[in-house]
Amino acid sequence: MTLPATMNALILKQDGFAPRREGAAIDTLEPYLDYGSMPVPKPGPGQVLVKVRMASVNPSDLYFIKGEYGQPRVRGAAAGFEGVGDVVGGQGLYAHWLKGKRVAFVGGVSGSGAWAEYIVVPAAMCVVIRKAMRDEDAAGHVVNPVTAWTMFDIVKQSGAKSFIFTAAFSQLGKLMAGIARDNGYAMIAIIRKQSQEAHLRELGAAHVLIQSDPEFEAKLAALCKSDKPRILLDAVANQQAADIFMAMPARARWIIYGKLDTEIPSIRETGQLIFMDKKIEGFWLTKWFKHASILEKLRTLRAVQNRFISGAWKTEVVAIVKLADAIQQLPGALKRGDGKVMLVP
Amino acid sequence: MTLPATMNALILKQDGFAPRREGAAIDTLEPYLDYGSMPVPKPGPGQVLVKVRMASVNPSDLYFIKGEYGQPRVRGAAAGFEGVGDVVGGQGLYAHWLKGKRVAFVGGVSGSGAWAEYIVVPAAMCVVIRKAMRDEDAAGHVVNPVTAWTMFDIVKQSGAKSFIFTAAFSQLGKLMAGIARDNGYAMIAIIRKQSQEAHLRELGAAHVLIQSDPEFEAKLAALCKSDKPRILLDAVANQQAADIFMAMPARARWIIYGKLDTEIPSIRETGQLIFMDKKIEGFWLTKWFKHASILEKLRTLRAVQNRFISGAWKTEVVAIVKLADAIQQLPGALKRGDGKVMLVP
Repeated sequence: MTLPATMNALILKQDGFAPRREGAAIDTLEPYLDYGSMPVPKPGPGQVLVKVRMASVNPSDLYFIKGEYGQPRVRGAAAGFEGVGDVVGGQGLYAHWLKGKRVAFVGGVSGSGAWAEYIVVPAAMCVVIRKAMRDEDAAGHVVNPVTAWTMFDIVKQSGAKSFIFTAAFSQLGKLMAGIARDNGYAMIAIIRKQSQEAHLRELGAAHVLIQSDPEFEAKLAALCKSDKPRILLDAVANQQAADIFMAMPARARWIIYGKLDTEIPSIRETGQLIFMDKKIEGFWLTKWFKHASILEKLRTLRAVQNRFISGAWKTEVVAIVKLADAIQQLPGALKRGDGKVMLVP
Repeated sequence: MTLPATMNALILKQDGFAPRREGAAIDTLEPYLDYGSMPVPKPGPGQVLVKVRMASVNPSDLYFIKGEYGQPRVRGAAAGFEGVGDVVGGQGLYAHWLKGKRVAFVGGVSGSGAWAEYIVVPAAMCVVIRKAMRDEDAAGHVVNPVTAWTMFDIVKQSGAKSFIFTAAFSQLGKLMAGIARDNGYAMIAIIRKQSQEAHLRELGAAHVLIQSDPEFEAKLAALCKSDKPRILLDAVANQQAADIFMAMPARARWIIYGKLDTEIPSIRETGQLIFMDKKIEGFWLTKWFKHASILEKLRTLRAVQNRFISGAWKTEVVAIVKLADAIQQLPGALKRGDGKVMLVP
């Protein structure tokens, strides 16, 4: 196969970080991205070139293009962290072995991005995808599912058979609901809209609380008493999240992995950290990727893939948008909010 | 020796917890304590009766009598957690072996308190004091020195050769300064008054920052850059403490062990917990006593005692107040603030 010299991509217009944080919500892509032409990237040692079939749109992508993620933007690079595609080239033994295979990948930190026709990623960040798996499931194969799997490990280690999950109607929340139920754990899901409740229960959430319910506090207190959850997995990090943490029993851990609300939370009862042995910390998948052993990673990725192939997990896609239409259509597609948005070249 | 049936003590007037938190500062003891007569407590199995020589006044005592500590008050019981005295009775083998010996002790949770002529404590919470040690050093032998020792273990495990300590002119802060210097660690001490700086440097603090210094932030930022401290040991838990934590480098841990300020802190940059792997947690000596092995405790207590006998540590006493005068004199003595206040029967 002869590779073209240039390709189309959604290209970052800005460098570095934003001066202030607004959260993942996006009304327009125009300040951040251009749809345009750029050179096809070239793989270095240990890297592969992947012809992208489909890329996913995660909250982390949106934080990143807005300059609110933990890593600086590079103007002129393609956006997008995750996707699925076919390996068409590469350097190194493993890279050569991967050639011709369909892989799920995570990239985007080396300056090459998934919202493009081609991407260069480390061969080690590719997972060969079995035939039985749909592109829709493979494109979001790593970030959310692996996050769910590793977060569930944290829940298991907590010793409690219950945990609390905010913004639970996210793709991640839906995955967590299933894995919790299938392993005999009660997920206490916090959501915004009553209309999302039935579907989330169907997916596996044992308890669903609506944020705006006037009896929210009383219901939460009752569940904290009966179920004694010790882990709060939280992508919102606002005052309500802080108050949920304060309502939890001794040895609770508030594990923050996102900042969907710009409100700054206060810790009303720091004494709980002392006398109740509570902790506040963060979760970042990149850290897990850096520190987990290869065996742990392989076991996790295999488990994730098996859940998709068996049908226990299914990616709910609400829109598939072409790269060329993304500037116009992506913000609207993201507002539907009840499933995943995918990009295709 | 014939024991009397009754004794004098500072007796708790209230039960349970206070409705709100005000911190350790005390203007008057009258709402909380009576000086009066009560029965001499009787030791149960595994307990000893100690004739108190001297009791220390720690911040934890003040929080406790105000109902702001992690354990509920019991009306009619004597106050006071810690002191030194002579074992005059007891039940059990170890208790009998202790009889006639001078011991430092921690008690006060079983309903018997140190601010009294006699106290009943578990034999296991007594440390035999060598002759060379002064009563003044022995009376505050456990809470502050053992806290300092165990906190310093946390600093050592952090991998950085520097740490930050707020409210550093406390008895605990002074102990930390010495142990840090003697082990080659740089303590960054945060204090309120310029006048305390010279003495704290003499005791071992490598860097001293004055809270109200207009260049506080710039100086802290420079030290965070040069020394890369990872541990913030904090008894204040206000917004300045939160901001110090935010200024610290990756993998910093904000370890809260007190609440000297009632201001509620906000976490302005929750993203730091995610991307910089920072953590917020508490420290409570009681938890250490519950979870540390007997060997670890013995090793710690021996090390602490050796530091006092060698003169590396010295308890600075500003006032010794009689129990009978405490209601009148203790609040004033505590306001001197530059050393420890002791109570004697």
